Amino acid sequence: MREGDDIVVIDCGLSFPTEEMLGIDIVVPDFTYLVQNKEKVRGVFLTHAHEDHVGGLPYLLREIDVPIYCTEFTQALIRQRLEEKLPHKQLDFRIFKPGDIIEAGKLSVEPVRVTHSIPENCSMAIRTTHGIVLFTGDFKFDFTPVDGKLANITRFGELGREGVLILLSDSTNVERPGWGPSERAVSEGLRKVFGEAEGRVLLTTFASNIHRMQQVYEIAAEMGRKVAVVGRRMEQNLDTCERLGYVRIPKGTRIRLDEARQYPDNKLAILTTGSQGEPMSALVQMSKGEYGRLQIKAGDTLIYSARPIPGNEAAIWRTINRLFDQGCRVVYESPTPIHVSGHAYQEELKMMINLTRPYYLAPVHGEPRHQHLYQEIARNMGYPDHRVFTMKDGIPLMMDDTSAHQGEAVPAGRVLVDSSGTPGVTDDVLRDRNNIAKDGIVVVTVPIDMTKGVLASDPAFQARGFHGPEGILDAAYDVVYDGLTSLSRDELRDTNRVKHDVSDTVRKLVQKRTNLRPLVLPIIVEV
Amino acid sequence: MREGDDIVVIDCGLSFPTEEMLGIDIVVPDFTYLVQNKEKVRGVFLTHAHEDHVGGLPYLLREIDVPIYCTEFTQALIRQRLEEKLPHKQLDFRIFKPGDIIEAGKLSVEPVRVTHSIPENCSMAIRTTHGIVLFTGDFKFDFTPVDGKLANITRFGELGREGVLILLSDSTNVERPGWGPSERAVSEGLRKVFGEAEGRVLLTTFASNIHRMQQVYEIAAEMGRKVAVVGRRMEQNLDTCERLGYVRIPKGTRIRLDEARQYPDNKLAILTTGSQGEPMSALVQMSKGEYGRLQIKAGDTLIYSARPIPGNEAAIWRTINRLFDQGCRVVYESPTPIHVSGHAYQEELKMMINLTRPYYLAPVHGEPRHQHLYQEIARNMGYPDHRVFTMKDGIPLMMDDTSAHQGEAVPAGRVLVDSSGTPGVTDDVLRDRNNIAKDGIVVVTVPIDMTKGVLASDPAFQARGFHGPEGILDAAYDVVYDGLTSLSRDELRDTNRVKHDVSDTVRKLVQKRTNLRPLVLPIIVEV
Repeated sequence: MREGDDIVVIDCGLSFPTEEMLGIDIVVPDFTYLVQNKEKVRGVFLTHAHEDHVGGLPYLLREIDVPIYCTEFTQALIRQRLEEKLPHKQLDFRIFKPGDIIEAGKLSVEPVRVTHSIPENCSMAIRTTHGIVLFTGDFKFDFTPVDGKLANITRFGELGREGVLILLSDSTNVERPGWGPSERAVSEGLRKVFGEAEGRVLLTTFASNIHRMQQVYEIAAEMGRKVAVVGRRMEQNLDTCERLGYVRIPKGTRIRLDEARQYPDNKLAILTTGSQGEPMSALVQMSKGEYGRLQIKAGDTLIYSARPIPGNEAAIWRTINRLFDQGCRVVYESPTPIHVSGHAYQEELKMMINLTRPYYLAPVHGEPRHQHLYQEIARNMGYPDHRVFTMKDGIPLMMDDTSAHQGEAVPAGRVLVDSSGTPGVTDDVLRDRNNIAKDGIVVVTVPIDMTKGVLASDPAFQARGFHGPEGILDAAYDVVYDGLTSLSRDELRDTNRVKHDVSDTVRKLVQKRTNLRPLVLPIIVEV
Repeated sequence: MREGDDIVVIDCGLSFPTEEMLGIDIVVPDFTYLVQNKEKVRGVFLTHAHEDHVGGLPYLLREIDVPIYCTEFTQALIRQRLEEKLPHKQLDFRIFKPGDIIEAGKLSVEPVRVTHSIPENCSMAIRTTHGIVLFTGDFKFDFTPVDGKLANITRFGELGREGVLILLSDSTNVERPGWGPSERAVSEGLRKVFGEAEGRVLLTTFASNIHRMQQVYEIAAEMGRKVAVVGRRMEQNLDTCERLGYVRIPKGTRIRLDEARQYPDNKLAILTTGSQGEPMSALVQMSKGEYGRLQIKAGDTLIYSARPIPGNEAAIWRTINRLFDQGCRVVYESPTPIHVSGHAYQEELKMMINLTRPYYLAPVHGEPRHQHLYQEIARNMGYPDHRVFTMKDGIPLMMDDTSAHQGEAVPAGRVLVDSSGTPGVTDDVLRDRNNIAKDGIVVVTVPIDMTKGVLASDPAFQARGFHGPEGILDAAYDVVYDGLTSLSRDELRDTNRVKHDVSDTVRKLVQKRTNLRPLVLPIIVEV
């Protein structure tokens, strides 16, 4: 957000590709606006360490130098990966505690503690000339958080009294009525499954869900089970948190995976990554019997203590099916919850509005359907529609003491990153990939003797990813050959024309006979 | 199923591709076993007209001639599409009514009426020398079906008394405790949404869900709304059902879409296809503002009266988000149901077991996780594990009077069909598509003068779907050129060697510098 010559950036996340974005690993924001105004950017303030809030940072930091404000915990979780991605960059971390007030030009930023599915999560209150702009960040109101650190609801109320101009609110769970269960509620569900399991208990969750892991250690200790961790990311996070005291593992409970064979199955629990069915994750490889360090066996119980991120459902179900087929019982639904969400339900969203009593409202974390449902809730709380804004990427909201309106578009959008790590895969490249992915590619080489203006040898056809009926390429050859030999010497020397003719001929013939539309790539070889 | 020289086939469905099956439209069974034994196949018996039970028929009928046994309704729904796909085939339909007993060699088949989310649905009881083999097909026990035609539970009980050797049961909803709501329950939910809607009401559901549409017409009539239909398949089904009396549309309620503009918005309802987010469907096109015949506008309400088929979730949410952005309120969850499942819940599955009292049990409709949960239910009802079979494609279950065991594998599997309609896209083709889809393709042409054993002209690079950094192909050119010019005349004439060298060189260089792995296609042009 910007006032005058001061810009503060709240979070810098990534998102995941849709199924048309072939070959794309992650999607990051277009930073053009920030680069154009880089001398105004006072800092990036991180609410918490989830990928959708910090994963875009390496790409921003390649383009501008800017201090990163965050908690000690957030820094601990993200520093190593930032350094891996930016080996030559001096990172300017500035650690805050909730309640600090950080000057950022004429603006100031106050992080306010609030609960979520990761430790040390904050809302951000930014003081401007016209009042407080309050970003909730991701939040829920959990009155029994695992680390005992409650949301500072009094501070939210004080900010409300001081004057909140606009509340930019999480809206992810606006579809859910009532009040969400506490993270602590999971203990009961897990305890029940642990109690029933005759063999090993495996549990998969998000690698950053420290409090979930904390509870697994506690329950395992209660029941006399040792806990090993599978999955590099999860192990790193646990190491870091144990070192800094953000997780308290009961003494003697944590073992290394290679020590696991020393214990009988009913004395073992395993924490594992792979809750989104990621092909390279430990869990998916175990489900295929392809993970060297651990094999699934009959009598195992896997607790799916996560939720599918939309788009991953099919991969997750395939993993679960394979686990069942290996004799593993998979618990993915339970009357006592084995997973709870980190996002506020309807009554919690209303409580945030009630506490902060903002003049304007804008749901910012959620899809359009969530934003629209949030608007319905606001309407029910007495907010007229003109005081609730449905934000769109790149359309700024302009506010002063007396009014607010959506301004002119600034550069914004999605930048695609593939496994090269270089952002900027273009729409043209994606279009080619999608075309080839559908029906394959047919390459036609046409060797032309440019001096004589004749074919230097016969055209040749090569296809990959193409499933045409037998003889179709021979038929295409005949038509192309006839076409080329009917051209005059000068026409044959016109390589653009030849390319166009060849491509057109082949496409039409193939489509007519097979209904397939492979990408046709004509290559003129001039000899 | 087979006894001696007699084979009867129950249903012949299709499934949908997973996300790795690029360019694939549908997946059908491998019919090799049936083709090898075609003189023994007495008929295909269709339980109902859903695609996952009839969609594979055209591909079977291309390979063998066989009578199709089904109800009048099923025939009406599938005949036209079968004729379109098999224009030169004489279709041998044989119409049955529930309760008929159809001789099939030494076997006999008795369809038994049972309820589901499509009219005229049957289980199939096959009498063998060793007892009755009972396929439930898809079913639920709905005591208030929209057409009033109840499941013949008494007949199931009689079959049980006669002696059911094995029950092959639906297990799709085995995860759901209790008893599923009746299709009639949807009326209340729909009535509520219709009552609250100020503008037009749109409703999307599966095109074969005749009873859902019946209820929409009834409620629309009650509320003084006219109903138009968008989507060819839905329209065809409604026409057929109206003609044959399977749907009773209140007089004057059905209008054509082009008549809709004559009515005010609050007097209109629209039925539409597209509940799975299919890109070419009316609903998806409307959500993008690209459907010529109907535009979404503020004040519209869309009822999502369906469930996502796994894998389609992301496409469906995108559609719903776009509709919200156009000002359409989308109702996709509701305390009073706006969709119910057509599959039996746990207590219904148990009731089927209780009625039929089979000696053996095998869940056959459902994924592995459903099969395993079904086994738990059976265990709780006193079935020892050796009497419950987890079936796998291609592994026959062999039974006689005294025993049952899984036999030797017969040819089976999945056959992939693309938009050419020709089955049999191979794994090699898919592998190429996946490789190219990920990082693109680089084609290297090497013109060689075979007589002289020298390069006829310079090698050339062409890339599609490839997102390499600037200069990468120039660098590859240099390395390839150096490699080729260092070869002797004879080595250069060895085209396999040249291909291998070029491909290897380019792959290694590109991967080392960019971490990308495009498919490299070397083409030797001999001149």
